[in-house]
Amino acid sequence: MSAAAIYTYYRSKAELLYQVSRAGHVALLYEMQAVFARSATPVQRLRNLVLTHVRFHARMHTLARVANYEMQSLDGESRRAIIELRDQTEDVMREAIRLGIESGDFETPDLDLATVSLLSLGIDVSRWFVPGERLSPEELAEQYADMALRMLSCRSSGARAQATTAVGAQARD
Amino acid sequence: MSAAAIYTYYRSKAELLYQVSRAGHVALLYEMQAVFARSATPVQRLRNLVLTHVRFHARMHTLARVANYEMQSLDGESRRAIIELRDQTEDVMREAIRLGIESGDFETPDLDLATVSLLSLGIDVSRWFVPGERLSPEELAEQYADMALRMLSCRSSGARAQATTAVGAQARD
Repeated sequence: MSAAAIYTYYRSKAELLYQVSRAGHVALLYEMQAVFARSATPVQRLRNLVLTHVRFHARMHTLARVANYEMQSLDGESRRAIIELRDQTEDVMREAIRLGIESGDFETPDLDLATVSLLSLGIDVSRWFVPGERLSPEELAEQYADMALRMLSCRSSGARAQATTAVGAQARD
Repeated sequence: MSAAAIYTYYRSKAELLYQVSRAGHVALLYEMQAVFARSATPVQRLRNLVLTHVRFHARMHTLARVANYEMQSLDGESRRAIIELRDQTEDVMREAIRLGIESGDFETPDLDLATVSLLSLGIDVSRWFVPGERLSPEELAEQYADMALRMLSCRSSGARAQATTAVGAQARD
């Protein structure tokens, strides 16, 4: 298919951008919601969400880059629809952090900022990640999940061991 | 001055983009190098670098956005020049982390990834920061500096108190 032929399927460049961006945001949101819904301790749940979020941005870095950095090219209505999806993804991460604060596992002076910063780390991966370099998306995600727990002053020592088991269990699902 | 009149000063859009991007990268690099060179403990130095980096990306968010997200529009030579500046900025942050590992203040399994992730947090601020909302660039930077120290498993309790004093001292310079 030629590059031009794609406009057989989309009315305009703006429509194409919206559909690509929407597909990326929906895929990430659904994956995050599914991970959130799994039975887990607050620490495991947060860790699994960060793993998912970082892996997604590394594996789908081109899609994610378009979705994250071309938002100003969307028209008002499309932009609002995308922001709504982003807000829902943010809600998932915020609720996971909040549950960990409630359980006494996490401590952070500013829930909203903690949420933004964890999402920030994952989103920025799509800007700099180059496949085939030193770390795979999986290895990168593991390290970032550890970092995320440290950012949240996670009290559970052995959080990594616990969570590694949980991720192993998911892989066997 | 009209938008078009700017081309009296620059040969082309590409040249304008390069000069804007270069100015942003040079300003940040010089500021980081100056902060690095100040007498400080490893913890204070790292904290001051993160403060500087985050504040820069919040205050200069439009410039930083252009500099960070339009790099693919630069031609080969311009791109290489900008990457060299970015590498130097990265070197400053990496060396500050390394000094803290050497002194026993920080612990991180992967120096390069720790460096990338701290820079990532700051860079992504330019994507989402909206002036006049809840946090000022200064307040945001303070919280991010605390988070950065936690990411590096900083051992010095009271790191914030120490570093706040150091920042206060700078403000009086």
